[in-house]
Amino acid sequence: MARVLVDVMLKPEILDPQGQAVQRALPRMGFDSVTSVRQGKRFELELEDADPATLQATAEAMAEKLLANTVIEDFKVTVLVEDAGARGAAPVNTENA
Amino acid sequence: MARVLVDVMLKPEILDPQGQAVQRALPRMGFDSVTSVRQGKRFELELEDADPATLQATAEAMAEKLLANTVIEDFKVTVLVEDAGARGAAPVNTENA
Repeated sequence: MARVLVDVMLKPEILDPQGQAVQRALPRMGFDSVTSVRQGKRFELELEDADPATLQATAEAMAEKLLANTVIEDFKVTVLVEDAGARGAAPVNTENA
Repeated sequence: MARVLVDVMLKPEILDPQGQAVQRALPRMGFDSVTSVRQGKRFELELEDADPATLQATAEAMAEKLLANTVIEDFKVTVLVEDAGARGAAPVNTENA
């Protein structure tokens, strides 16, 4: 089983009302050091094993077709490869689409 | 300006209807290699400069108070430090809370 992360964020030039709502709420809770908040989506996908390049291409195609609205959103794919020695997984590559 | 990422995902034992809806849709679009989809939130925060440990603690406090519902969600904080040489930023540490 391979794990792939897809992070989808609004393009910088697009208004982010959710992020702004959080940005306005944080100072009221005592957090004064915030200058900007952007909110997006994270998808954790489990795919059948394949080489990293194939996993990368598959996840990008999923993002383009379904996970992201590429007119207003950017996405980033991170393929995680289980490192037999270390605990957890290490990112292989992060391509900005 | 410091950039901090906060990724918020439902705890594994919690039902994820959004993720399941995506998981059911992907095969209909020709993606047969998907065995699981989990959907969560990503926050990109810009905070006033501080040392990584302070940034980490501040973002965790924000997550506990507002960004995550810690009864049903886990969160992970990643402090990004601008590396003067390389393009973009590199994660300093990723603490699983």
